[in-house]
Amino acid sequence: MKILLVTPRERADAWRVALAAALPDATIALWPNECPAEPEYALVWKPPAEVFARVRPTKAIFNLGAGVNALLDVAGLPADLPVIRLEDAGMAVQMAEYVTLAVLRAYREADAYAAQQRKGQWQPRPRIAKAAFGVGILGFGVLGQAVASALACFDFPLAGWSRERKAVPGVTSFAGRAELSSFLARSRALVCVLPVTAETRGLLDRANLSSLPRGAHLINIARGEIIVDEDLVALLDAGHLAGATLDVFHEEPLPSGHPFWRHPLVTVTPHNSAVTLVDESITQIVAKIRRLERDESVTGVIDRTRGY
Amino acid sequence: MKILLVTPRERADAWRVALAAALPDATIALWPNECPAEPEYALVWKPPAEVFARVRPTKAIFNLGAGVNALLDVAGLPADLPVIRLEDAGMAVQMAEYVTLAVLRAYREADAYAAQQRKGQWQPRPRIAKAAFGVGILGFGVLGQAVASALACFDFPLAGWSRERKAVPGVTSFAGRAELSSFLARSRALVCVLPVTAETRGLLDRANLSSLPRGAHLINIARGEIIVDEDLVALLDAGHLAGATLDVFHEEPLPSGHPFWRHPLVTVTPHNSAVTLVDESITQIVAKIRRLERDESVTGVIDRTRGY
Repeated sequence: MKILLVTPRERADAWRVALAAALPDATIALWPNECPAEPEYALVWKPPAEVFARVRPTKAIFNLGAGVNALLDVAGLPADLPVIRLEDAGMAVQMAEYVTLAVLRAYREADAYAAQQRKGQWQPRPRIAKAAFGVGILGFGVLGQAVASALACFDFPLAGWSRERKAVPGVTSFAGRAELSSFLARSRALVCVLPVTAETRGLLDRANLSSLPRGAHLINIARGEIIVDEDLVALLDAGHLAGATLDVFHEEPLPSGHPFWRHPLVTVTPHNSAVTLVDESITQIVAKIRRLERDESVTGVIDRTRGY
Repeated sequence: MKILLVTPRERADAWRVALAAALPDATIALWPNECPAEPEYALVWKPPAEVFARVRPTKAIFNLGAGVNALLDVAGLPADLPVIRLEDAGMAVQMAEYVTLAVLRAYREADAYAAQQRKGQWQPRPRIAKAAFGVGILGFGVLGQAVASALACFDFPLAGWSRERKAVPGVTSFAGRAELSSFLARSRALVCVLPVTAETRGLLDRANLSSLPRGAHLINIARGEIIVDEDLVALLDAGHLAGATLDVFHEEPLPSGHPFWRHPLVTVTPHNSAVTLVDESITQIVAKIRRLERDESVTGVIDRTRGY
């Protein structure tokens, strides 16, 4: 079996070593130095269009990350091959850490206490009622549900929003555009884990962000394109929103001079809420390759019309 | 049944209303205006010594909080009556929030990322290996175990330290002074939930804090007396410890001019990691009163020689 690996140079060795250990009989080719014309599988992260001009995988393309929007936009991506994304693979717990930190920081008013400390002020603040602090998870698939399960310890009223209704114990499920604004209205913390598609691009605009309750916090670990940046800044400045914790941006790195960098209510992190873990990812991909070789079905196959 | 209630004036009505609703047949007396000589029960929070000079409860004294050190120091506290403390009663989840926030903030290097944001720096930092980020819970009773259970979602290596060994799945149990330094050596985050007793006062001194691994964070939600403040500051200044999140202090409010207020590695909060919740506490106390009235045993009775 021939496998083509297309990854940024700094991680190439780590991927190759892990893949060779898991599939010792496979021949692994590393782009751009090695370039078999028809490998069975390609494992890719942000491949240049040139890859698909020169290489024609025969069985499947694995995306070395959860978000496939960049890959689906690559010119020449074969239309008829299964594209398979990573599911969790160690990312869920990292996202749960990131989101739990941001939610608790908002709920426990860490910034207000830090400001009091700077002034030498000993002043307990009235605790916000849990009932008034719903946490809404926008995008309620594998990762969104993992986030919900980490938050479940803390008794926040939890809700998830997705295309189709999901039955998850302890989480109120909202589905579809018709229920979006009631979902938003109960989300004092809104956690965005949506894939970016034609339907979600710009979804968090002034109208939808205004549906959040006054004092709400926005946490975005999905893709920058889902947010209309100017609308978010306007609602923070107007006092409708109390804060935003953003890991992803329209352009990355976030350009210097972008208002998010210096906004007192915005926390910027450099797209590191979850990093792809090589060993966990290879274990998952190799298990799927084995299933495909036995003509069995696998999960995580992208629906190209849906976009995720 | 007569019950005496001794609480700070600002919360007295809340306690009285909740108690009257839960025990409609009881006569509730509110100190200092009402003062029955021999109520069956007294529910007290930081009572003045005068209370026990004038009132002699016949069955039990309930402490309206988890920490009884202040109560046990009150002159004239009847030596032969059961003193019963609150167990959890809504405090565990609050403590879990506080500790999880502090642990994740340290693990995810929130302060370093905030500093990078102030400089407009987009710089992902290598993730700290979970295996190198043990969380140690010093004091592993009801509250310590609740904290461990909230942290369990995040795959930190967890350990608890207590007088007697505890069997809690997923948590390594250390017991007694002989095992303290090996417990500390694996605790990159140390969470102090100990009661203050003759044995724990000043326990976290230079020698013991030095047993923590380099880069460790200290989180104290128990009592200030457990820490030797100068030793903590010295180890932070020496770079051995990376941070401290402190909710409790030798003197409260923390005196202005105390070095903790302005230390860049210290987070000060005004003893609010967990506030006593009236309804949950009354439910628990009334359930215990009902058991005592039936001559059944109750949990949470203080061992006066142990001090908690």
